[in-house]
Amino acid sequence: MPAISIKGIHMPESPIRKLVPYAEDAKKRGTKVYHLNIGQPDIKTPEIAIDAVKNSTIEVLEYSRSEGSETYREKIAAYYKKCNIDVKAEDIIVTTGGSEALLFALGTIADPEDEIIIPEPFYANYNGFATSANIKVVPVVSKFEDNFALPPIEEFEKLISPKTKAILICNPGNPTGYLYSKEEIKKLAALVKKHDLFIIADEVYREFTYDGAEHYSILQEEGIDDNAIIIDSVSKRYSMCGARIGCLVSKNKAVITTALKFAQARLSPPTLAQIACEAALDTPQSYFDDVITEYVERRNTLVEALEQIEGVSVAKPKGAFYCIVKLPVKNADDFAQWLLESFDLDGETIMVAPAAGFYSSPNIGQDEVRFAYVLKKELLVKAANILKEALKVYPNA
Amino acid sequence: MPAISIKGIHMPESPIRKLVPYAEDAKKRGTKVYHLNIGQPDIKTPEIAIDAVKNSTIEVLEYSRSEGSETYREKIAAYYKKCNIDVKAEDIIVTTGGSEALLFALGTIADPEDEIIIPEPFYANYNGFATSANIKVVPVVSKFEDNFALPPIEEFEKLISPKTKAILICNPGNPTGYLYSKEEIKKLAALVKKHDLFIIADEVYREFTYDGAEHYSILQEEGIDDNAIIIDSVSKRYSMCGARIGCLVSKNKAVITTALKFAQARLSPPTLAQIACEAALDTPQSYFDDVITEYVERRNTLVEALEQIEGVSVAKPKGAFYCIVKLPVKNADDFAQWLLESFDLDGETIMVAPAAGFYSSPNIGQDEVRFAYVLKKELLVKAANILKEALKVYPNA
Repeated sequence: MPAISIKGIHMPESPIRKLVPYAEDAKKRGTKVYHLNIGQPDIKTPEIAIDAVKNSTIEVLEYSRSEGSETYREKIAAYYKKCNIDVKAEDIIVTTGGSEALLFALGTIADPEDEIIIPEPFYANYNGFATSANIKVVPVVSKFEDNFALPPIEEFEKLISPKTKAILICNPGNPTGYLYSKEEIKKLAALVKKHDLFIIADEVYREFTYDGAEHYSILQEEGIDDNAIIIDSVSKRYSMCGARIGCLVSKNKAVITTALKFAQARLSPPTLAQIACEAALDTPQSYFDDVITEYVERRNTLVEALEQIEGVSVAKPKGAFYCIVKLPVKNADDFAQWLLESFDLDGETIMVAPAAGFYSSPNIGQDEVRFAYVLKKELLVKAANILKEALKVYPNA
Repeated sequence: MPAISIKGIHMPESPIRKLVPYAEDAKKRGTKVYHLNIGQPDIKTPEIAIDAVKNSTIEVLEYSRSEGSETYREKIAAYYKKCNIDVKAEDIIVTTGGSEALLFALGTIADPEDEIIIPEPFYANYNGFATSANIKVVPVVSKFEDNFALPPIEEFEKLISPKTKAILICNPGNPTGYLYSKEEIKKLAALVKKHDLFIIADEVYREFTYDGAEHYSILQEEGIDDNAIIIDSVSKRYSMCGARIGCLVSKNKAVITTALKFAQARLSPPTLAQIACEAALDTPQSYFDDVITEYVERRNTLVEALEQIEGVSVAKPKGAFYCIVKLPVKNADDFAQWLLESFDLDGETIMVAPAAGFYSSPNIGQDEVRFAYVLKKELLVKAANILKEALKVYPNA
């Protein structure tokens, strides 16, 4: 039998998905499973977006331009202006989800064996994309005790080698919910400028900031136009995960010219979804106000309920819709599996994402899980209660 | 300024797209441009597919499974059964276009510096995907004089090294229109079995076979289940290029398990398009009969018209909707640009794809262009006439 590639063997399994078979078995046994493991919001997609597709008069479902349709890119640029991010349509390449934007960014700036520094814990699929591009992820640990604030800049500096091409951040953070302050972004900006590195910022949760905190984009920072690349996506913003539309944004012309060659090779992003996304940009502010209010209430509800459980602590999130939760268990991986395999409270259990998979360093976060607060408040209360009762009887606590 | 990656610099520009700025300039001057350069059919997408999206009752546009929705994969398996290809849903991973299927296939079987043998001329974006994966394309020349039939198997064998992981074919071929015979496929099957290689077959034009010739899939060939990977796409089959839906098919479990890890990293193929594609599978046979009839007439019309032009010859296609045309010019690249920049016949000109970009070897195909016969017959006649008149006055013939 011909051999699988080494990179294929090393491709990590998603920590979000690896428990799926256990969840399916639980459902087969009749157990109801609350999914706190994946950032698939239950929020309705703006009707304006769905209706645009339904009302379209397409007869031939053609390719769009490789860089995305002109009208859509113009409207994205206008959206960024409203976010105080000054970019033009020509600085934007529409991609198939934020995933493809990251893939293009990595291909544009790094070759095999090159290194990318990422504060951990980080979005687990960064590992997958790095493996697939044969790029080495160099983690810098951010701490639960600090709510996962930016690690001291000297910690980054220690890790910079001639192979280092970029620093990658997610802001607000998945899985941490941490929102970097303007000062933290300025420190990173100075660092990448000093060492002539790229900074890639995954800003897909831009709108999801709480308690009056404001998002500060790397493209609002002056003087790093040549260094900065934004990864963006409509998935969470408009609850359109299935659209698979994102974009790569940079004012560095060489980055856009190069990324466009990757984009041309795959011809075009999805046409139907671009129609929906272009319309979604007209979603009224009231939609976001409602959604943010809902998420704040969910966060408060969940964090409060979790913190009342003995031995449980939460790194309080200021953005996105995730939080890292420390549990009184040795191995959260085993615990998460046990919750699906061997536990139920009145026929119900929960599925959470073990956090070790969000770290690149070994032996960190083994007592942590990620909760995605993407369910209604009453279900989050139920979920916290299930966790509480489960911890009481878990044999390997 | 931080540096672009070496692979980014080496990423080839698409030969199909690189003349686009000249075409846009021509249009600005008021010249009508007939697009024979790209495989974007003018055929209507089956209404059943568009209507399925319009009639869907989606409220939250969610991710689908990473491997594609269950119902869609079951229906794809049933489609393959009708094509005498015996595969199950579990052998199929739905991808974002055939492009992503190829990306997953390359990632699954090859590491940087590994080699893939491809008969040339080949679909130009194979170069892009190979560059992006740091894989070396090793071309084996197929000849215009043979209508681009499979080169002698010894030519392949000479090129096999310890780095060789796969042979990649496109059948029927883009840009050649050549349809491999059952005997040719059997020879390739014996070769990959003997040398323990993968064979990747891009069969996106499966239905487009003419003159009574039948397509023979690599998965119809017995004994190479562990070697064979099919790349497929709905783009041409249902004139749904903008859907961006394809699939990777293999009966090799390790291939599917590994490709699924790549699929999980990018979460999900587009959801709206999957709804359209699932419905498209119910397209009645009469649609294809009409389409095939139309393409045969277009091919005959175009080939006949081209062959009447002095100095022009055509490698007659038996499938797909492309043909390679030899022109009485030294450099077809310059000629194609000149057609857009400096020529018009009563305010009209044509855009064709210079064929050199479809070869990996240097200095081959420089007097060849690819025509895509994706326009109505009367326009193809016009296009051939424009070529005829252009050749009469072209200064660098």
